[in-house]
Amino acid sequence: MASFASRLVDAVRSKGNPVCVGLDPRLGSLPEACLESSQDLETQARAYAKFCCQIIDVVAPMVPIVKPQAAFFEQLGPHGMVALGQVLNHARAQGVMTILDGKRNDIGSTAIAYAEGWLGGSSAWGADSLTVSPYLGSDSLEPFSETAIQRDCGIFVLVKTSNPGGGYLQDVTLPEPEKHVYGRVARWVEEQSQNSSDNSGFGPVGAVVGATYPAQLKAMREAMPHVWLLVPGYGAQGGGAADVAGGFNELGLGGLINSSRGIIFAHQNEDYAEVARSDGWQGAVAEATRRMINDLHGVGIRPN
Amino acid sequence: MASFASRLVDAVRSKGNPVCVGLDPRLGSLPEACLESSQDLETQARAYAKFCCQIIDVVAPMVPIVKPQAAFFEQLGPHGMVALGQVLNHARAQGVMTILDGKRNDIGSTAIAYAEGWLGGSSAWGADSLTVSPYLGSDSLEPFSETAIQRDCGIFVLVKTSNPGGGYLQDVTLPEPEKHVYGRVARWVEEQSQNSSDNSGFGPVGAVVGATYPAQLKAMREAMPHVWLLVPGYGAQGGGAADVAGGFNELGLGGLINSSRGIIFAHQNEDYAEVARSDGWQGAVAEATRRMINDLHGVGIRPN
Repeated sequence: MASFASRLVDAVRSKGNPVCVGLDPRLGSLPEACLESSQDLETQARAYAKFCCQIIDVVAPMVPIVKPQAAFFEQLGPHGMVALGQVLNHARAQGVMTILDGKRNDIGSTAIAYAEGWLGGSSAWGADSLTVSPYLGSDSLEPFSETAIQRDCGIFVLVKTSNPGGGYLQDVTLPEPEKHVYGRVARWVEEQSQNSSDNSGFGPVGAVVGATYPAQLKAMREAMPHVWLLVPGYGAQGGGAADVAGGFNELGLGGLINSSRGIIFAHQNEDYAEVARSDGWQGAVAEATRRMINDLHGVGIRPN
Repeated sequence: MASFASRLVDAVRSKGNPVCVGLDPRLGSLPEACLESSQDLETQARAYAKFCCQIIDVVAPMVPIVKPQAAFFEQLGPHGMVALGQVLNHARAQGVMTILDGKRNDIGSTAIAYAEGWLGGSSAWGADSLTVSPYLGSDSLEPFSETAIQRDCGIFVLVKTSNPGGGYLQDVTLPEPEKHVYGRVARWVEEQSQNSSDNSGFGPVGAVVGATYPAQLKAMREAMPHVWLLVPGYGAQGGGAADVAGGFNELGLGGLINSSRGIIFAHQNEDYAEVARSDGWQGAVAEATRRMINDLHGVGIRPN
C-alpha cells in the first residue's frame, strides 16, 4: 500500500479540494429520518451509525477524508462503539479516508495498544489516522508514529488548538527557535515527518492547528513543510475561507479543513431550508459541502 | 450520594491502604485458566473480561480502587469495549471504586460528551472517575470537572508523568510561583479542588504525579493540599514504597499508589511461583496485593 501521506495527496488531488467532514453525531440534531421512537442507548447508537453512514454516502464522492469524533460514540457506551466500528467500516467500503478523532495519549506499550487498535486495515477499528495529544512528551508520541509508519497510516498531533484557552499551556514561551510550547511540539512533528517523508513531499505525522489563529497557521505551515495540517475551527467555530489560506503550500497541498456541524447539520440551517425541503437532509449535506468547497476555491485554495 | 473525594477517603480508611490495582490485560500474559483456544477478537475480549472480573473478586475486599486501562480494551475493537463495560459493572457490583484510565481530552461539548459518557452510575459506562490530559488548556478541563462535580465523581488530570520524556513539555520553565508547565496545571487542579472541597478535606479534581520523581511528588503534595494524587510508576516502572511516601498528608491520606503488572501478572513472577502452584493465579494476585500493602505500611503509609 502507498504511504498515508501519498494516499492523502492523491485523495485531495482527485477530489479537487481539502475538505474533511467531521462526523459528530448528537441526538438532538439528527434528522427525523434517522430517529426511532425508542431512546435507549442501543437505539441511539443505531441512529448514529445510520446518520453517519448516510452522510458518508453523500460526501465520499466529494471530499478526500472524514473524521468521526470518538467522544459522541463513547457517550453511548459499548453500543456506541459498535456504531463507531460500523461507521469506520462504511467509510473504508466507500473509499473515503478516515481520521479517528480520539486525541489519544499514553506511554510505552499502552500507547502501542492504542495505535495498534486504531490504525490500519488489519487493526480492530481500521482507521487511516488518529489524533494524538502530546502532553506526555516525545517518547509518548513515538509509539504512535512508529506504528503509523509500519502500517502506512498517519497521526495528527495537537499543536495549536482552536479554543480560547488553548494558549494556557501551548503559548508558554521558550527560547528561540521554538519560541513556545506549541513550537516545540511542531519541531518534533516536522522532524518526524521530514525523516520519513516520501516523494509526496509529506510524512506520516500531521499536526492539528486551529483556524482561529490565521497568523499562527501560516507560521506553522512554514515551520512544518513536510507536515499535513488538520485545521479545525472552520465555520461554526468562526474561521472563514480566508483564515485558512495560510495552511497550504505553493502546490495548494498540506492542509485539511474540517467542518462538522456546518455540514452534517445543514438541514437545521435556514440557508439550506429550501434544498432540505426538495432533496431531504442529505441534499442539504451535499449542498453545504459544495458551498464549502466553492468558498475555498474562491480564495484560491485548490490543489494543483 | 457522597462526593467522590469523601467516598475515596472512606474507602481508603476502611481498607486501611491506598492501593490502586491497574487492570491492564494483555493476551500474552493472561493465565491459562482465562484463555480459550480460539484467538479472534471476540474470544480475546471475553478472556479480558473474565481475567479482570476475577481479579476484582480477589482485590475488592482488599483495596479501595481499581483502574482499568482503556487502551487494552480498545485494542480489541467493539468487542473489547463490551468487555470494558462488563469490567466496570463488575467493579461497581463488588463495591470497589473505579478510575477509567483513558487520558481523554477535548473541548466544549465534545469534552462534555466524554465526561457524561464515562462518569457516574447514570452514565453509559458508570466509572467513578476518569484520567484527563491537559494540553488543550483550562477551558478544556472545566467541562470534565463540572460534570464530575454534578455527578459526585472525580477526574485525575495529568500533571507530572512517570515516563523519561515526561519533562519534554511538562518541565518547560515558567516564572514563580508556577515554575514549570506542570506547576501551572497543578495550580489549576488545586484551585478547582479547593473551591469544591468538602469536609473530607479534598475536592473532585485529582492529579497524576509519577512515582519516579520522589522530590517532585513531595513538592506536588504540598502545592495541592486539597487534591487526591494518583501515583503510577510503583513496582514495574521502578518506584518503591519509600519513593511514594511524599504523596501523603499528615493523616496518611491524599495518595493512591497504582500497581498494574506487579499485581495482575504476579503468577508469572518467580517470587509468587509457590503460592501460584498452591492457590492458583488468583492466589498470586492476592499475595502480591498483600505484599504491596505491607511494603507501604512498612514505610508508614497507612491512613489514620
